[in-house]
Amino acid sequence: MSETTDERTARDRISFLRTLRAFRSFRPDPVPQEIIDDILEVARWSGSASNKQPWEILVVRERDTLRSLSSVEGYAGHLAGAPLGIVLIMAGDRAEQETYDEGRLAERIMLAAHAHGIGSSIGWIVGSGRDAAKELLGIPQEKVVRTAISLGYPDEGARRSSAGRGQARKPLGRIVHEERYG
Amino acid sequence: MSETTDERTARDRISFLRTLRAFRSFRPDPVPQEIIDDILEVARWSGSASNKQPWEILVVRERDTLRSLSSVEGYAGHLAGAPLGIVLIMAGDRAEQETYDEGRLAERIMLAAHAHGIGSSIGWIVGSGRDAAKELLGIPQEKVVRTAISLGYPDEGARRSSAGRGQARKPLGRIVHEERYG
Repeated sequence: MSETTDERTARDRISFLRTLRAFRSFRPDPVPQEIIDDILEVARWSGSASNKQPWEILVVRERDTLRSLSSVEGYAGHLAGAPLGIVLIMAGDRAEQETYDEGRLAERIMLAAHAHGIGSSIGWIVGSGRDAAKELLGIPQEKVVRTAISLGYPDEGARRSSAGRGQARKPLGRIVHEERYG
Repeated sequence: MSETTDERTARDRISFLRTLRAFRSFRPDPVPQEIIDDILEVARWSGSASNKQPWEILVVRERDTLRSLSSVEGYAGHLAGAPLGIVLIMAGDRAEQETYDEGRLAERIMLAAHAHGIGSSIGWIVGSGRDAAKELLGIPQEKVVRTAISLGYPDEGARRSSAGRGQARKPLGRIVHEERYG
């Protein structure tokens, strides 16, 4: 029996979700505005606890800003070589829910980029880097800033040389249980 | 100029991401095993801080278990009427990163379900419900359990009557900044 359009569409979407990987090396080409618009629209429709949408989003393309942000305490060094950064600004009201919702939002932004062949990587800001990032970007003190996502067209040379490095996943047999644990 | 296959594919994927919504009312039909397999595979490939994959996944189809789980402290009442529940079991080592990674994982599970027309909703377990859920499911005390996702084919009647209720989103003008905050 030949595959239906619905089956083909489902298969494409699953493959699309499954193949998201982090990229940290980018070509210098800018990310087109239409693609940024799509990413923001997907971000806007993210779900959140009690639909609070406890976020704002800062789009950064200025080289100097990206470079400064890349050097604050944390793991956002890859921002220095990215043509685009998206900083997540959380409300700072409910720590646990907002951390969880921020993960949901970050995942959607990476997927929306991936839909257009744009690679991305989460830059995780820690310690004094969080205040430094707020200071740098003019963000009020009460907000929480810990995610700066690098985005750009993947550098294919770097992609090949990094393939397999730290990207493996545990087999399902090690993580899935049925009905009861263990 | 006519649209290329790549453009069409990108458009479908963005529309697919944008249209994810939470569903809490399900038809009783079981979710086919091939779809559960796809959801687990997409879950397995989730990204996490330092690629730690600090999770295990419990698949629950037994009616009595779902009903018991729906009544622990929290917001997972919709599990009682779902044919399938997926419980996320976090390692319990690094609170902030794991909460964030759990959000990423939950989002991917919902999207993989959505790829197959399966609706879902995050059941958020709080307070004493977390220990109760672990006790009920035989999960070791040191793990963190706060997410039980309901899944099933959406009940279309309920879908229509709930349309627009609590699902609106803020306009982009209220959440997006460029280069600097404010």
